[in-house]
Amino acid sequence: MNARAQQLIATRYGTDTLPAPAAWTPVIDHLLGHRSVRRHLPDPVSEDQLAAIIAAAQSAATSSNLQAWSVVAVRNPDTRAALAECAGGQAHVRDAPLVLVWLADLARLAHVAESVERPNGALDYLEMFIIGVVDAALAAQNALAAAESLGLSGCYIGGMRNQPEKVAELLGLPPRVFAVFGMTLGVEDPAAPPATVKPRLPQQVVLHQERYLPVTEQQAGIEAYNAAMARFYEDQKMNVHGTWAVHSSKRIAGPETLSGRDRLVETLRGMGFALK
Amino acid sequence: MNARAQQLIATRYGTDTLPAPAAWTPVIDHLLGHRSVRRHLPDPVSEDQLAAIIAAAQSAATSSNLQAWSVVAVRNPDTRAALAECAGGQAHVRDAPLVLVWLADLARLAHVAESVERPNGALDYLEMFIIGVVDAALAAQNALAAAESLGLSGCYIGGMRNQPEKVAELLGLPPRVFAVFGMTLGVEDPAAPPATVKPRLPQQVVLHQERYLPVTEQQAGIEAYNAAMARFYEDQKMNVHGTWAVHSSKRIAGPETLSGRDRLVETLRGMGFALK
Repeated sequence: MNARAQQLIATRYGTDTLPAPAAWTPVIDHLLGHRSVRRHLPDPVSEDQLAAIIAAAQSAATSSNLQAWSVVAVRNPDTRAALAECAGGQAHVRDAPLVLVWLADLARLAHVAESVERPNGALDYLEMFIIGVVDAALAAQNALAAAESLGLSGCYIGGMRNQPEKVAELLGLPPRVFAVFGMTLGVEDPAAPPATVKPRLPQQVVLHQERYLPVTEQQAGIEAYNAAMARFYEDQKMNVHGTWAVHSSKRIAGPETLSGRDRLVETLRGMGFALK
Repeated sequence: MNARAQQLIATRYGTDTLPAPAAWTPVIDHLLGHRSVRRHLPDPVSEDQLAAIIAAAQSAATSSNLQAWSVVAVRNPDTRAALAECAGGQAHVRDAPLVLVWLADLARLAHVAESVERPNGALDYLEMFIIGVVDAALAAQNALAAAESLGLSGCYIGGMRNQPEKVAELLGLPPRVFAVFGMTLGVEDPAAPPATVKPRLPQQVVLHQERYLPVTEQQAGIEAYNAAMARFYEDQKMNVHGTWAVHSSKRIAGPETLSGRDRLVETLRGMGFALK
């Protein structure tokens, strides 16, 4: 166990000089092993597997028990292909046997209030949109951990936000329902190069003690991470130029680097989220 | 195992007529057992436990590997008491030995872009705020699952959003950093009434096949859930009046039911999120 913990920590942080924590459990072991997998066999995810995955998702916390989320299970190849196009042509969305589309869902709450003849004015506020997004994310993360424990694997698809109206049309989403992200699921294709664990920033950069550590004091850890990522790319024989800092900067350069998501406020307003 | 799976499913859905899925794993078992715990012993969470919890958090997916989140570990009793006040006087935030405050963090990315002399205009868009919120939520959910596997327990604190400027001041947050929610952690107080598993909506209400199930067709499942929650309140001898539908409707009635969070857009703009 300890040797395996050491290996998982070394891989997760891209350095073999870090001791594994003395506290360790099989669940922590499982979570540390996460990889984003983009190549799947066509074998379907069974109904029993999906039922267990959704039960795990529903076991996550939800704000005031509002359960402001839903999920659409998409197996239909035509819909998967159309969703792949929405997400910028990601082949694994087309090819994975199951795509789960995770929804911030305020429509059910609007319906519930209507059914007991009560007002629902809070739904028009950004806060309620955030509740839906957070509820969906907590549920999805439980779902992925559950799926991975069943021998499945997959990948979050933020590209669902590139063209939200098209996704809504494909899935028949009513007003006040927004696809926050997708998630592919399936059995990893053993014939493809195995997906790797991507190293993360040193703990001292993301974990702050009592107060936020000023960014200038995060710099040493960020530089260590740039070096760890350079080693990672070299080990993977990936022909990547520039540091993590440069890659990340390119991703946040301006509206043109947001793959259409610079229109999100306008789009959400059109979908029934007033975002007051 | 199967009897335990059956028990977990019965408790999670508040009905004993539902078969447990044939697919089951120890991780799924663990996730199904989640309860929000609000009474803790003063025993501290160890540094080793926290290191393992954060490693699990960092193992969650993150959009484009931007890692747009941070977390502040608060053990200081004065800070905990002040955070409890910010959250509307929640005693368990004051009393839990550890409060983790989960942050959507665009400040580090702004710094990173500056360090390589590149523009960061995308940070001003709602999309990047959503990326920070989702990244923080995925990380937090892994953290909670890890903590629970170590024998700890806790509760999400959405009340961190009631007075975001005060939370920012207490934790020294720079512009472009927002406390999405808190999380108490500690050992459950065995002298307190044990926290219970809260039943959830039937799967057919939240899990949609291929297309979104119209809310009118969700109504039968919602009514079954109102009945399940009524049984739950009766079993718990909780003096609760009205159905889940009524409770939820009260929570979303209007801006006055948002505990100050109806000001969130204005507040976020003041904190450096342009939300374009």
